[in-house]
Formats: sequence, C-alpha cells, structure tokens
Amino acid sequence: MSEEQLYAMRHSLAHVMAASVKRLWPEAKFGVGPVVEDGFYYDIDLGSVKISEQDFNKIEAMMRRIIAEDQDFVREKRPIDDAIVWAKESQQPYKEELLNDLKRSGTTVAKDLDAAEMGTIADGDAAVKEVTFYTNGDFTDLCRGPHVANTQEIGAFKLMRVAGAYWRGNEKNPQMQRLYGIAFATQAELDEYLERLELAKQRDHRKLGKELDLYTMSPLVGIGLPMFTPRGTVLRDIVAQYSNQLRQKYGFQKVWTPHITKKDLYEKSGHWAKFGDELFLVKSQETSDQMALKPMNCPHHTQIFASKPRSYRDMPVRFLETTTDYRDEKTGELGGLSRVRSLTQDDSHVFCRPDQIEQEINNLLAAARELYGQINMKLRVRLSYRDESDGYLGERALWNSAQAQLKAAVVANGLDYFEQDGEAAFYGPKIDFMATDAIGREHQVATVQLDFVQPERFELEYATDDGKFTTPVMIHCALLGSIERFLSVFIEHTGGWFPFWAAPEQIRILTINETVTDYVDEITTILREIVLMAPIKYNEVRFTVDTRNESLGKKIREATAMKVPVQLIVGPKDKSARQVSVRTRDSEQKIALDELKTYIKKL
Amino acid sequence: MSEEQLYAMRHSLAHVMAASVKRLWPEAKFGVGPVVEDGFYYDIDLGSVKISEQDFNKIEAMMRRIIAEDQDFVREKRPIDDAIVWAKESQQPYKEELLNDLKRSGTTVAKDLDAAEMGTIADGDAAVKEVTFYTNGDFTDLCRGPHVANTQEIGAFKLMRVAGAYWRGNEKNPQMQRLYGIAFATQAELDEYLERLELAKQRDHRKLGKELDLYTMSPLVGIGLPMFTPRGTVLRDIVAQYSNQLRQKYGFQKVWTPHITKKDLYEKSGHWAKFGDELFLVKSQETSDQMALKPMNCPHHTQIFASKPRSYRDMPVRFLETTTDYRDEKTGELGGLSRVRSLTQDDSHVFCRPDQIEQEINNLLAAARELYGQINMKLRVRLSYRDESDGYLGERALWNSAQAQLKAAVVANGLDYFEQDGEAAFYGPKIDFMATDAIGREHQVATVQLDFVQPERFELEYATDDGKFTTPVMIHCALLGSIERFLSVFIEHTGGWFPFWAAPEQIRILTINETVTDYVDEITTILREIVLMAPIKYNEVRFTVDTRNESLGKKIREATAMKVPVQLIVGPKDKSARQVSVRTRDSEQKIALDELKTYIKKL
Repeated sequence: MSEEQLYAMRHSLAHVMAASVKRLWPEAKFGVGPVVEDGFYYDIDLGSVKISEQDFNKIEAMMRRIIAEDQDFVREKRPIDDAIVWAKESQQPYKEELLNDLKRSGTTVAKDLDAAEMGTIADGDAAVKEVTFYTNGDFTDLCRGPHVANTQEIGAFKLMRVAGAYWRGNEKNPQMQRLYGIAFATQAELDEYLERLELAKQRDHRKLGKELDLYTMSPLVGIGLPMFTPRGTVLRDIVAQYSNQLRQKYGFQKVWTPHITKKDLYEKSGHWAKFGDELFLVKSQETSDQMALKPMNCPHHTQIFASKPRSYRDMPVRFLETTTDYRDEKTGELGGLSRVRSLTQDDSHVFCRPDQIEQEINNLLAAARELYGQINMKLRVRLSYRDESDGYLGERALWNSAQAQLKAAVVANGLDYFEQDGEAAFYGPKIDFMATDAIGREHQVATVQLDFVQPERFELEYATDDGKFTTPVMIHCALLGSIERFLSVFIEHTGGWFPFWAAPEQIRILTINETVTDYVDEITTILREIVLMAPIKYNEVRFTVDTRNESLGKKIREATAMKVPVQLIVGPKDKSARQVSVRTRDSEQKIALDELKTYIKKL
Repeated sequence: MSEEQLYAMRHSLAHVMAASVKRLWPEAKFGVGPVVEDGFYYDIDLGSVKISEQDFNKIEAMMRRIIAEDQDFVREKRPIDDAIVWAKESQQPYKEELLNDLKRSGTTVAKDLDAAEMGTIADGDAAVKEVTFYTNGDFTDLCRGPHVANTQEIGAFKLMRVAGAYWRGNEKNPQMQRLYGIAFATQAELDEYLERLELAKQRDHRKLGKELDLYTMSPLVGIGLPMFTPRGTVLRDIVAQYSNQLRQKYGFQKVWTPHITKKDLYEKSGHWAKFGDELFLVKSQETSDQMALKPMNCPHHTQIFASKPRSYRDMPVRFLETTTDYRDEKTGELGGLSRVRSLTQDDSHVFCRPDQIEQEINNLLAAARELYGQINMKLRVRLSYRDESDGYLGERALWNSAQAQLKAAVVANGLDYFEQDGEAAFYGPKIDFMATDAIGREHQVATVQLDFVQPERFELEYATDDGKFTTPVMIHCALLGSIERFLSVFIEHTGGWFPFWAAPEQIRILTINETVTDYVDEITTILREIVLMAPIKYNEVRFTVDTRNESLGKKIREATAMKVPVQLIVGPKDKSARQVSVRTRDSEQKIALDELKTYIKKL
C-alpha cells in the first residue's frame, strides 16, 4: 500500500470512529480528527461521559459494523455560509467555530491547530469561501480529504488510548477526549507493530532508568533536569571518557568554560538574533549584566582560541569539552532522557587551515565509526545542506565549497549517506549521523559541522607563512551528541544489558554460605589487580560482593534484575576446587581461579 | 610592638599623611581615613588635581618633616553642633555631611562605611550627641582614636598607591582619591614586608596564569568567568582527580546533578530565605518556573538520596561530585581565580547514622591531610561554631553534640586547631582548613561540615533495624574548596613550578639537531609506555618534542619560561652513548636510555 493510500485509509478511519461514537453517544460534539504517525485520532466532547479503555471493544465493534455496511465516502463542496448553517443544525459548536474562523481567515485557524489537524479542514490561506464535506453512510463531516472510496478499503486497526486535550490546544478552552487508534494495511503489519511496541515498552529507558537505578527526577528541581545516581554517573562518565579518548588520539585537548556568559558573546556570534528565545536568561542581582546559560559551546571556545597569537604551524588547534548546555525546551516536550533542559555535550571544535579540512573530517568520521561499531549500531549519515531560504550566514561560495568537502569525506569513508537541503545549521553545512538500534529504530546521534561564519564574526586569525593573517575554518563535532539523549538510546538499544566495559556494576560475587569468606577475599584481590584497557584505557573492575544470609536463588534473581553482566557464584565446592562458577546472560561455566584474570580481561 | 600600638601608629599616620596633603594642597577636602591590613589610607578630594606616584616622595618628605616636628596628638570632646560649625568653617563638606548624619543616627553612617572606616569616627549607635577630635600641630580631625601620644612614636612607613574611590562607596557620589600607605614598627619589618610583596608579585597567579597559558578571560563572556586553556584544564582535572581518588578510597561514589533548579528546592532547604540575593536567577521564556543557578550542591544531592528507600545497612551513602556552582559576586570583588562567579567545587556529601559520624569525619580529615601534605602545605584547622545570634537552623542540643564530635575528631587526628564562634554555616558547625603557602601566607581551603538540618527539612529517612524510620546526618566536604581558588593558591605556592605529577607539560624533549630524529622516536616510545601511579593512578606522561631548527639555548629558555619540570636534551653524543641529558630546575645529569623509565616513574 502506498503512503498516500495509507494516509487516506487512516483518515477515513477517523471518520468511521467518529461515526461509531455518534451512534453510541448521539450527543457527541466533534473537534478535529487528523492522521498522525501510525494512525489517527479524533477530539470528542461527550459532556460528562468519560470514554475509558473498557469502551474500546464496543467502539471497535461498531466501527467494524460500519465498515461492513459497505459505505462509500462521498465528497461535496458547499459555500462557507451553508456549512455554518449545517454546523448549527447538527449541533456541532466546535465545527461552527472553526467555520466562522475560516470565513474570516484560514491563517488564524492554522495558527492554533498543528499542521496535521489543519490538513483535515482546509489550507491555511486567508478568508475561505468554500469548504468540502465527506459523507459515509449517516455520518457527514467537514473535511478536506482525501479518503478511501469505500469502507471496504479499510485495513487493520486498533484503538490504543484516550487522553485529555484542550480544544485548540489552549488550556482556557474546554477539555475534550482525544481518542487514538492505529491502522495498517494488513493485520500482520498491525501485529508486528504491536509487537515492536511491546518490545519498545519493555526497553523504555524511563522504566529501565528506574529499575536499574540510573537517574531520578525531583519536582523540587524541575522537569527536564534529571539527576544521575552513582550507577547512572558511571555510565555517563564511561561513554564520555570513551568519546574523549577516541578524539584525544587525534590530538584533541580538553578545555573548560563556564556555563554562563554575557549576552554580548551571542550577539557577536549571531546566536542571540537566531535563538534568543530558546535561551534561559540569567539575571545578576548585583550588576546590570544581561546574561544567559550557554545553549552551545562554540562561542566560548572561540575566546580560548583568540586568547593568544596563533601561527599556521600551530594549526589545527583542537579543543574538547564535555560540558552541560541548557535549552529552554517547552515542558510538554520533555520526557525521560530523550529531551531534557540540561544536555551534556561531548563537544569539540577544530580550528584549522582550509587545506586541513579533509584530514580533520576523516579523523572525526573514523572516531564515530569506531564508537558506533563498538556498540553494534549501524550508522548512516545525512549530509545536511542549506536551502534557498534566508537566515543562513556566510557567503554562498563558501557554502558550496564546504558542502562539497563534507560529501567527499563521507564518500571516501564508505559511509551510507543521503543528502537533504534545508537541514544545515545557520552557520554551515553538517553531517548528521543516524544509528539503528536493536529493534530497528533509527536515532540521530553524532554531528560533524563545518563553520566558515563564526571564525569571521569573532575575527579569529592565524599568521600564514608569509607573515599575513587569515581566518581559520571551524569544525564542530559531538560524537555522542547529548550524553542524556545518547543514554536514552543506549539503554533502549541494549535493553539495559550494557556491554561489560560499560556496565555500572560489572561483576557481582554471590556467596552460597559464610564458609567461603576467605576465598572471596582471594577473588576480590584478583579483581582489584585488573585494569581493563579496551575499548577504554585504565578502567578498574567495578564489582560488589553479596554475602547476605539469603538463598542463592534470591541473590541470582536480584543480580539478574539489575542486569549485572557477570555473576561469580562461590560455594564450598568452588573453594575446594579453587574455581568460580561464572554466570553470564547466556552461559554458565566453571573457571579456575588462576584463569579468572585472563577470562575477565577478555570480556 | 603590640597590635594595639601598631593600630594607633597606623591611625596616626593617616592623620600625618592628611596633614601633609593639606600643607601641600590647602584646598584638600577629606573623607575618611581608616587603618587597614598592614597600613592605612585616606580618601581625599583635591578637585581637578590628581595625585600620582610621582608625588609620593614629596608627600613622604612632608610627612617626615611633620613627624620631626615632635607633635603631640591631643584629644578633645565637642558637642555635635560645635563640630558641625567646625566642619563648615574649615570647609570640610564631607566631614560636615558625616556629622549631620551622625547627629541624626550613627547607624545610618555605619551602613555605608565599612567597619574600618566607621571605627575612625564613632560607634554605630543611634543619634550621636558628642564627638571626639584629635589635633596634631596645625591639623585637626574628627576622630575616635586611639592615636600615639606623639609623632616620635611613629615607625617606618611608605606610600604605596593611589586609586579612585567613590565617597561612601556609592557611584552616584563624587569620586575621591584614596591614598594608601603601609606602616610597621621598624624599617626592617617594612623591608621584609616589601620583599614578601615583591615575591608575591612575581608569583601572582594572574601574571603566571597568562605566562604559563593556564586560563583566559573575555569581556564578551564577562568578569569572574575564567575559561581554561588546555594547560589549565590539565591542572584542573589533575587536582580534581586527586581529590576524588582520595575519597573514592573511602567508598565515595560520583553522582551528577544539573546546574539549575526550581526555586522550590531552595525554599525547602532554607537557602532561598538566607541567600536569595546572592543567587543568579534563571528565567525560562517557555514556562513561568522561577529558577536559579545552584550556588551549592547539597539540596540536589538530597534528592538523589531520597530517590529510593534506604536501610541502616546501606549507610553511609557517600556522594561525590565535581561540579560548578554560580554565585552572584559583586564585580568589584572579582579578581583572577581567587574570587570568581563560576566556582567548581570538589564537593561530597555523606548521609550516615549518628554512630558513624566519627569514622566518616576521620576519613575526610585523613584525605585532607594527605592532599595538603603531598603539596607541602602546612595545615591548621578552625573549628567554626555558632554564636548566640539568630539565623541558625536546628535545635541547640544538636548543635552542641555536633560541635563536640567535630572537635573530638580533630583532636584525635592531631591537627593544629583553634575554635571560633559565629563562623558556622546556618545549618551546622564546620571544620575550616587553613593551609600555609611557600611565602608564609595562610589560605582557607577545604571544609568539613556537619548538618543536622537539611536532612530534616527534606524529610530524608532510612529504615532502622527495628523497622522504624529515622533521619540521617549529613556531612558536607570539599577538599580543594573551589578548584579555581585552590589553583590560585597552588600557582602562587609553587610559583608555577608545579610538582611533576601535576605539571600540564611534564617533559619536553629538546633536540640539538636533526641527526637525532630516530633516537627521539626511541625516547618517545619509552615515554608512551609509562603509566604514573602516584599520587594519582593511571596517568600517562604529558610530553612534547621541540625539534625546531633553533639554538639549544633558545629552546631551553622557552621550556624554562614555561616551567616544564623535566627537559630531556638530546644531541648526537647522547644518541651514540644511548643516554639523555636530563635538565630539571635544580640539576643536570646524564641518564642511560635503559634507566629513563625507572627515573621518570620515581619523579
């Protein structure tokens, strides 16, 4: 089934669902009913009647009955004033309000309905003279279409949930009930979707974040501001350390900048004009300084570059900083670690000569490939170019040259790629990395970004070999992107079974009884001597010992619930045989004490 | 000479200096002239005449002449109204203003003059009826005293500098000239002071910070917000890592919290009421949340403690976080790294049972002793207790018990200590560490702080062994204090010659000519294999190679200017003898290549 057919089918299902609701509750008043990802919804006002999941069977049965009635979807144009009369007579006050607004100006309506909703009614141009209606059986609705020709063309569907939603998204308006369904061409596709949904639910990082004690939120601190427990902090530090080591190999050096700045920095960079309303503003009570929390680090890093004279011999200068940026995201958009207000970037900036661009991009692409290869995520990249719209800073010729160089590096690295206009940052084209997780979802992760604009705005320069001064090129790169977002992906990709090197608790020793205490001491002495060197250098083994007077079964269940990758079970027999029973997710084996160090270093 | 005598002498010198100025510029109008550390100053309005350092000889000569005049200091009381007439007649408008204010209320005057200035005029009580004057020779001044009896009792002095100062510290008032001098009982003491000052000037961390390329400031980012270059960041990281490793040994675990929070957190903790005006306020443009940058981390850490149930068996819970706090310091108080708006704390919090306090304090005292011992700074501690004033939270009995336990731990650790009332935090008593630097100055560094209040306010609890719930005790501790402040001390203490383990660039290889290139490769291979383990584990050697076609003399001068502790000089003779010439700050020696690794690991 084509995308267009699927869209029409889901749209028609919204009408069928509304028709069913109207047959069941004839007093129903309808808002809007658009197509959304994987399905559709309709906003419904049932007065004091609350639809619950218990009603879904009944509504679905009615929908199936309507579909069986073999109804055609009939399109009809009416003058707007006739339409208003229709809305009045059919006691549909929300439709009436929309129609009156449309009569005045379609744009007004578009402003508070999102694109999906708007598409169901009319285009968002000025005053509307004529609107279209669709009728199937006894149900007529104001609607742009398109729809399927007949209810027989409708595939598999399922109602999923009902939630409160304010009319036109405004909390001063009445609250309606938003009834969601999903729909696919075949029952097999629907089942597969539900299965994937179930998988995703089990792996939901918000669920696992709590179960594995990785992070917490507090209403006192606020939404979108996660705090990381000791286990979650190990995870944060280990992935950041890995990302840093991959770049330190190529000569990146750590720097440190504060989290706030005077507004002046962003006026000079151009961010203030472009992103001023996404910033958290900071107010000094002692001075009149206008300040902001940094939403990115490049302007700060230019100031370190500018702090001393640079020569062509010093280039490239490569800065690395894992630091937290703050963005004033709408609270409705915040959830778990996927979207936060405090986002920690594993950020880096290269300042280089034009002739060094390709080598530098190659280094960064190699680092990204190594990182995502290590965690078994398939990468493809989007080459994000500018489009013809305004708002991009810098000369067109520079853009063209930069875009060509990025593409050359991507091709040379043999990366899967696609090109997209209009996705560039305002200061330069970029490479966006998409990584596919274990259940087939694609996530945007790393970026490598060229920038010919900021160096100019900050008047950065280096001395050339003929004693003149020229402007360097800047390359922005974060391999993980934001650590919080990366962790949300990493948790769901692994389902919480982190690879050995990344696991917050790598090994747990479980004792069978207290006769093995001295033997456990021998084991922990061995564990303390181990320094892991791959993929990250100099990591001591993170282990704990469970010597509680509890059954082995309970100890194993608890260690497994915490997804500890290696459990060392130690009983009197192990002690006398000078061995340990090693339990991992998919195997159990005996390892001689003498071999333990070698075994663990290979994990 | 006693402290009181020294004070009187410095105070009398302020009058002698004013008298000299008046003889030289009879139109001089005087503000206030208090005693300050090591000397005295006087605020003077000379209209359009600007005093410069070139005038110091002339003024000092006049001061010596006045002293030689063998003048007595004569004290006299006058009714306030007579005093006002005197001020008018002698055309001293600032004195007149002060006297009028004193007549209304001494407290008003005290409010905008600091304690030192105020002490020269009157006590800060309500309306003043009578004031005292001192006269020496032809100079009479409103003054509380005390003074020396005769100018012959005045010791050695020197004018140091002149700076602008607004009358009563208010920038809306006229700007006066503040003329500073120092004074000591003997010329020998004064010379010693000047010598120490010269030493301190050479070691000034602002000067060294620039010379050694450690940090930078930018007017675009703002005052008090240093940014750290690669070299400075190594230094930051290395001392933070050391401080962390010292505590991780005792079971501290790293956590991570954001830099902002809703105001609610500080209302609950009590900080909002106490420190609300020292906070940087954060404004969301998307929501109506009232937020702030965190000035400390304890309230955030309580929320991680509270994120899951805790039992007596889990205690102590020990959190560690190196994170940056923000305090809205007055810009006039900001200088270099000593006082900044972005201060990074090596912070930690222990949540423990009351019976665990002593052991936990002992661990922290041991860690602090090891750290300051490692960098050769002598420690003494201040036991900071509450006083009888209001504003302390928590029951008196808890305070008494806590203060006693802190003292017991300090005594048990054999630390030099003194006790001081009124220096406690509002939520508990503390131990402040003072460290003495290489030129004899004492700096406040680490703190260990008990807290019975916040756990209660945040309703923290753990299950006791009889199944009830009780409130834990909290112990705050930062070993370095703020990293920025610590670095300002560390840089001045070492004069930029950091110990080998902390040096940003530990080794520089200097080649004599290009015939040794392959031999340098052999050396760098050896250096790359070295992992230093003390005092911090797992540090690779930080080295560079200077192969430029420059003279050895120039290369050595540059490496020495950057205070690189170990210079390896490599020439054809070294190559054929398979040795290196090792140059350190105080020695030069030949080391066989085979011995190089061992030699460096011992540094």
